[in-house]
Amino acid sequence: MATQMIVLNGGSSSGKSGIVRCLQAILPDPWLAVGVDTMVEALPASMRGSDAGIEFAPDGQVIVGPEFLVLDAAWTAGVAAMARAGARVIVDDVFLGGAASQERWQKALVGLDVLWVGVKCDSAVAAGREIARGDRVGGMAALQAEVVHEGVVYDLVVDTTHTESLVCAQTIAARVRR
Amino acid sequence: MATQMIVLNGGSSSGKSGIVRCLQAILPDPWLAVGVDTMVEALPASMRGSDAGIEFAPDGQVIVGPEFLVLDAAWTAGVAAMARAGARVIVDDVFLGGAASQERWQKALVGLDVLWVGVKCDSAVAAGREIARGDRVGGMAALQAEVVHEGVVYDLVVDTTHTESLVCAQTIAARVRR
Amino acid sequence: MATQMIVLNGGSSSGKSGIVRCLQAILPDPWLAVGVDTMVEALPASMRGSDAGIEFAPDGQVIVGPEFLVLDAAWTAGVAAMARAGARVIVDDVFLGGAASQERWQKALVGLDVLWVGVKCDSAVAAGREIARGDRVGGMAALQAEVVHEGVVYDLVVDTTHTESLVCAQTIAARVRR
Amino acid sequence: MATQMIVLNGGSSSGKSGIVRCLQAILPDPWLAVGVDTMVEALPASMRGSDAGIEFAPDGQVIVGPEFLVLDAAWTAGVAAMARAGARVIVDDVFLGGAASQERWQKALVGLDVLWVGVKCDSAVAAGREIARGDRVGGMAALQAEVVHEGVVYDLVVDTTHTESLVCAQTIAARVRR
Repeated sequence: MATQMIVLNGGSSSGKSGIVRCLQAILPDPWLAVGVDTMVEALPASMRGSDAGIEFAPDGQVIVGPEFLVLDAAWTAGVAAMARAGARVIVDDVFLGGAASQERWQKALVGLDVLWVGVKCDSAVAAGREIARGDRVGGMAALQAEVVHEGVVYDLVVDTTHTESLVCAQTIAARVRR
Repeated sequence: MATQMIVLNGGSSSGKSGIVRCLQAILPDPWLAVGVDTMVEALPASMRGSDAGIEFAPDGQVIVGPEFLVLDAAWTAGVAAMARAGARVIVDDVFLGGAASQERWQKALVGLDVLWVGVKCDSAVAAGREIARGDRVGGMAALQAEVVHEGVVYDLVVDTTHTESLVCAQTIAARVRR
Repeated sequence: MATQMIVLNGGSSSGKSGIVRCLQAILPDPWLAVGVDTMVEALPASMRGSDAGIEFAPDGQVIVGPEFLVLDAAWTAGVAAMARAGARVIVDDVFLGGAASQERWQKALVGLDVLWVGVKCDSAVAAGREIARGDRVGGMAALQAEVVHEGVVYDLVVDTTHTESLVCAQTIAARVRR
Repeated sequence: MATQMIVLNGGSSSGKSGIVRCLQAILPDPWLAVGVDTMVEALPASMRGSDAGIEFAPDGQVIVGPEFLVLDAAWTAGVAAMARAGARVIVDDVFLGGAASQERWQKALVGLDVLWVGVKCDSAVAAGREIARGDRVGGMAALQAEVVHEGVVYDLVVDTTHTESLVCAQTIAARVRR
C-alpha cells in the first residue's frame, strides 16, 4: 500500500521545515505540506497571545488554551480528510504532549498509511539555530528538544545535529512507498 | 442554525485578506482562516511555476494544471471536514471559473450552513492597490476583477472601492448567525 | 535643481509604505526606498524589545532608548550620504518627536533638495487598517495619527483617508523636479 | 583601535544571515546589520527583474545593470557613512566580482577599521540548503560558492559546511576589538 501521509515530529528549530521543503522537492509525486505553523497562522491574531489560544511565554514555553484545542482537533480532522480525498500530505508538528499527541493524530488518521518520522537535534545545537533564525522566542528549542519525543513511536528517526536537511529528506524518501 | 462557514470570493487585490483579519478580530467566537494563499503555500515550490501546478503568466493570468486540480479538490474536502468537526471556518478564494468554482465548493460543503460573500472592487482601484502591495504579479487584479463573479450567487456583496475593510467586515459579521 | 530626496512622515498604518511602492513604480528614474522599517530590521533582535532599544508597549506606544538614538543618528547620516553620492532616496518615517524629529532630519540633509510630504489619515480609519493588516501592535495607529505632525512643515500633504495610495503617489510625483 | 565594521562575503545560501544574527546576539555592543538583501529590498520592484537592475536568471545567475551599479555605489557610500557616524555595522555581501568587489568596498571604507570575513561552504551542501530554504532561485548557491572568493583577502575565514552559525559567529566575535 502506498504511503499517504508523512508525519514529522520534532522540537522547535530542529529543522522540520527544511526537511519538508526538501521532501517536496525530491519526492516524485506532488505532496501538500501543512504543518503546525500553517495552523497557527490560521488562528485569529488574538488567540496567538491569549488564555484561550496559544501563548509563547518569555522563556519559550508554549501554553495552549481550551479554545485552541477545539480548533486544533478540527484542524487535524481536516488534514486527515485531505489525505483520504487523495492528496499526499506531509505534516510537521511539535508533540508537546509526547505520546498523547501522537495518539490524537493516530485516531484521526486511522486507516491511512502513515510514515511516522522523528526529527531529533541536539538541544544545544537547536538552541544555536534558534538564535541564527532570529524569528522565534528564545528558549523554545531547548525546552522542546527532548520532551516532544517522550513515548512516541516512529518508523524512522533522523537527526539534524550533524546531517543536512536534504540528506535527512533522502533517508525519509527512501521509505516512502508508491 | 448557526453559520458554520463564511466563503469570501473576489479577485486578486480586492481586499479579501484584510476583511478576513477584521472578521477574526470582531467576531465573538474564534474562526479559522484558510484561504487560497494558504493552499498555494502548501504546494511544492515546483508546482507554483510548472505546467502541472499553478502558474502566474507575466500578464497576471493564472494557469492551473491537472495535478493542481487533484490537490485543490482534496484541500476543499479537508476544509469542509474542519467545519464539520466543529471549527468555524472563513475561506477566501478566487473563483477563476466563476459559477463552476462555486458549484465545486457547494458540493464539498453540502449540509453546512454557509454565508456566501462577494468581495467586489473597481478594477482600476484594485490595479492601483496591486502596485501599492508590491508583492503580486502585475495585471492579476484587473484580469480577475469581473470574471470571478460571473454567475456566482451571494448572500451579500461588499465593495471595497470606497469602503474600508473593517466596515465591510462589520457588514458581514451582522449576517453571521450564532 | 532636481529633487534628491522625498521624506514621507506619517503615523503607523497611515499608508506610507504603499505610497512609497507606488512612487517607485511611477517615477521615471529609479529611487531607493529606505524607511523606518528598514532601520528597525537592521537592529539586533534584542534592541527591538529592550530598555536600550525600541519597545512597543502593549498599548502601541513606542519607547526608544539611548542606544537606539545613537544608531538612529548614524542611520540618518548614512541615508543622507546615499543621496549625496547620487542615489535618489525615498524615506518614510514616523516623527514621534514631531518638529524635533524633522529638525534632526533637516540637519542631516542640509544642502540636499528635499520634498517634505505629510501623510495624514483619519485616526479611526488608520486604526481599522491596523486591524486589517494584522501584523502590528494594536493602538499604534490611533496614538500616532496626530502627534507625528505637530509642528512639522511640509511641501505638500496627502490624506489617505479617502484617497488611494496610487493617487497620493501621483500627487507627490507631480511635485518631483528632474 | 576598535573594530568599526565587519564585512562578511560568501555565496548565496552559505549561511551569512544566520551568522549575522548570531553576531548581533553575542557581541556586547549593539551592531547594525545591513546586507545585500537590505539593498535589494530598497530597489524599485521593476529593477529586481529588468535589464537596468538586478536579474536572477533561471539558472541562478545574477545579472546587474548600469542603473543598479549607480545605486549600489551610493548604497556602499551610505553604509560607510553610518560607520563613520559612530554605528558599528555588519555588512554581508556577495562579491560577484571577487577581488574587484572587495576593492570597491575598500575604497568606500578607507580609514575605517574593518574585519574582513570569508564565509565558505561546500558547494553541494550550499545547494542542498538552498532547496531547504525554498525561497531562492535554484542554482545560485552552486554558481556562487567558489567565484565570490576569487582573489579576496580576509582577516579570517569560517566554513559553515560542518560548523554551526553560532560557532562561526563566536570565532568571528573573538577577533572583534573593542
